[in-house]
Amino acid sequence: MKKLTILGSTGSIGTQTLDIVGREPDRYRIEGLAAGSNVDLLVRQARQFRPKTVCLSSKALADEARPHLPAGTKAVFGDEGLVQIAAETDADTVMTAIVGSRGLPATLAAIDAGKSIALANKETLVTAGHLVMRRAAERGVAILPVDSEHSAIFQCLNGERRQDIQLITLTASGGSFRDRTREELHGVTVAEALNHPNWSMGAKVTIDSATMANKGLEVIEAHWLFGLPYDRIEVLIHPESIIHSYVEFVDRSVVAQLGLPDMRVPIQYALTYPERRVSPAEPLDLAKLSALHFRTMDYDRYPCLRFAYESGRAGKSVPTVFNAANETAVARFLNGEITFLQIEDVIASVLDRHEIVEVPDVTAIAEVDAWARRTAASI
Amino acid sequence: MKKLTILGSTGSIGTQTLDIVGREPDRYRIEGLAAGSNVDLLVRQARQFRPKTVCLSSKALADEARPHLPAGTKAVFGDEGLVQIAAETDADTVMTAIVGSRGLPATLAAIDAGKSIALANKETLVTAGHLVMRRAAERGVAILPVDSEHSAIFQCLNGERRQDIQLITLTASGGSFRDRTREELHGVTVAEALNHPNWSMGAKVTIDSATMANKGLEVIEAHWLFGLPYDRIEVLIHPESIIHSYVEFVDRSVVAQLGLPDMRVPIQYALTYPERRVSPAEPLDLAKLSALHFRTMDYDRYPCLRFAYESGRAGKSVPTVFNAANETAVARFLNGEITFLQIEDVIASVLDRHEIVEVPDVTAIAEVDAWARRTAASI
Repeated sequence: MKKLTILGSTGSIGTQTLDIVGREPDRYRIEGLAAGSNVDLLVRQARQFRPKTVCLSSKALADEARPHLPAGTKAVFGDEGLVQIAAETDADTVMTAIVGSRGLPATLAAIDAGKSIALANKETLVTAGHLVMRRAAERGVAILPVDSEHSAIFQCLNGERRQDIQLITLTASGGSFRDRTREELHGVTVAEALNHPNWSMGAKVTIDSATMANKGLEVIEAHWLFGLPYDRIEVLIHPESIIHSYVEFVDRSVVAQLGLPDMRVPIQYALTYPERRVSPAEPLDLAKLSALHFRTMDYDRYPCLRFAYESGRAGKSVPTVFNAANETAVARFLNGEITFLQIEDVIASVLDRHEIVEVPDVTAIAEVDAWARRTAASI
Repeated sequence: MKKLTILGSTGSIGTQTLDIVGREPDRYRIEGLAAGSNVDLLVRQARQFRPKTVCLSSKALADEARPHLPAGTKAVFGDEGLVQIAAETDADTVMTAIVGSRGLPATLAAIDAGKSIALANKETLVTAGHLVMRRAAERGVAILPVDSEHSAIFQCLNGERRQDIQLITLTASGGSFRDRTREELHGVTVAEALNHPNWSMGAKVTIDSATMANKGLEVIEAHWLFGLPYDRIEVLIHPESIIHSYVEFVDRSVVAQLGLPDMRVPIQYALTYPERRVSPAEPLDLAKLSALHFRTMDYDRYPCLRFAYESGRAGKSVPTVFNAANETAVARFLNGEITFLQIEDVIASVLDRHEIVEVPDVTAIAEVDAWARRTAASI
């Protein structure tokens, strides 16, 4: 029986995780569920899965939820509540499916408490990969990727030696605007940007796919997860999103992981690893697809990806700035404050103004993160 | 240091194996080299690699080679010599790269002598999979596939549990006539049939690719190598031969092995497994290829593949008959005795006349094999 706490249970990854859990209720016990502000859905989830603890982002929301929770489920709240639910339940695995850098303290607390991390919060590794991977190694805790690309690489590395890796390639659909030139991006609307060709995801991730910032975050995440230098991590445009990513080994043998786009496969794999279980996904039929296509990544077309590589290579506090500036810029685009192309301008400008912190600890990361958000909000 | 004997050292797989060995001479010691009748090349190989024993197909050929062999290299000959060189050298691994069912007694002798088998002689498993796999299990001997498709599946199964396999798919280029209808196959010449689009291989294998008998033999081989029933082994046409084969697991995750067509990769993998080494192969560049294509297999277009499945499912002595009839029919086509399409007719007719032997031992296999060849030669 897998004992699970889900941080971000009402989001896209969270609900799909509970879909997996609900299909094999005897194999899982839900210890904790943390949401932001979606009280209704969290209450429904709590009634179905009977966690010992739930968490909402504020006291008011927790108070609102409390009367509707099943007996035996307590409600906590805020960043403190999030750390508490991550670390203090009986969960053996914590699914970190919160979007953004808020997930870091909770993830570190879960690691310190010896819990395996099913990592769907990529910003955790982007902003604090040096801290997270070291603590996980010290505690002997597994970091199991949930992102489809990283799960793909993780699967391709089964039974292989890390030193035999030549190169990993993350595939990118190209996002909602992949067939537009940069000129055709002037004046695109939020609705257009949210129309992702292959994957159904949250709004932030969908915009990040269109700017390729998402792939950039994934490159930095891969650097930490697989311990590879940036010149051994490449990105390839693959519009169909069928090959989720692949590894080239030193003998030039390439091992790839494929499937129809369905996040429940990597989610489930993070929960059942090293075993596999029947999943609700549809089987892949390559003959029906008839062809898969590939294009070289164009770093001029997608400057956010270039920023991400540059930030990753610079290291130190720079990836935190890239991530925070991007989060703020995307929020501003979604609010109609800036245009799509200004997302890039904002990030570039914040990166330009940043004074690097050499080896940032959690406090420094939080400070840099807050500075970058303030700066990105004011440009 | 890997101590290696190569059965079929002057053929396509044999010479490529020696290419691998010659690039890292400190990692390998050649114990034995067996060839058919290519005395000149065998002598050159013996001078370079200094095996303790060489084998040729007849006493006359061995006598011809002897004066030219380096000091310390003895020459044996014939089927007896082949068994001797397979079993009696200090090799820890025997590469079985002989084409056709002649490889069986030598392979069994090598297994009995406790040597790992790098298996490039697919007919061994086709005709005697039940004997070979049982003896290998009893002796604790590894059977490492060299065929690109089986090496691909073998690589995809690294670190995975066999019970998690849903399906394996062997890819097929479609061979030299893949863009022709059956009607357009009337009167095709030997030269046309030998013009394979992707792989440079021996004549027999190239014809088998055009008839799809080769893929049929591979299906039967996969059945034995991976212990899978025939309804879990599929074939897909993939003209570019880049995805060499793939595994679908029960969670619908697909793991595939890819690469440019270069047999030296699977050959080397069989020699270095579970490690990988830098190989002379060129890296795969999917963006440069731009697309990969896939088509459903058409069993009416390729009756030899259907015969193979039917033979495999029937089991017992039937796969031996399929293989022997095919070998004879292909030889007759290459000699200009029958047309390309008559290859299928000959096989069908021999299969039709065969009286099944329930659990054939080596003697019965040899008898059935000889009967099928005689019959195929006389139709």
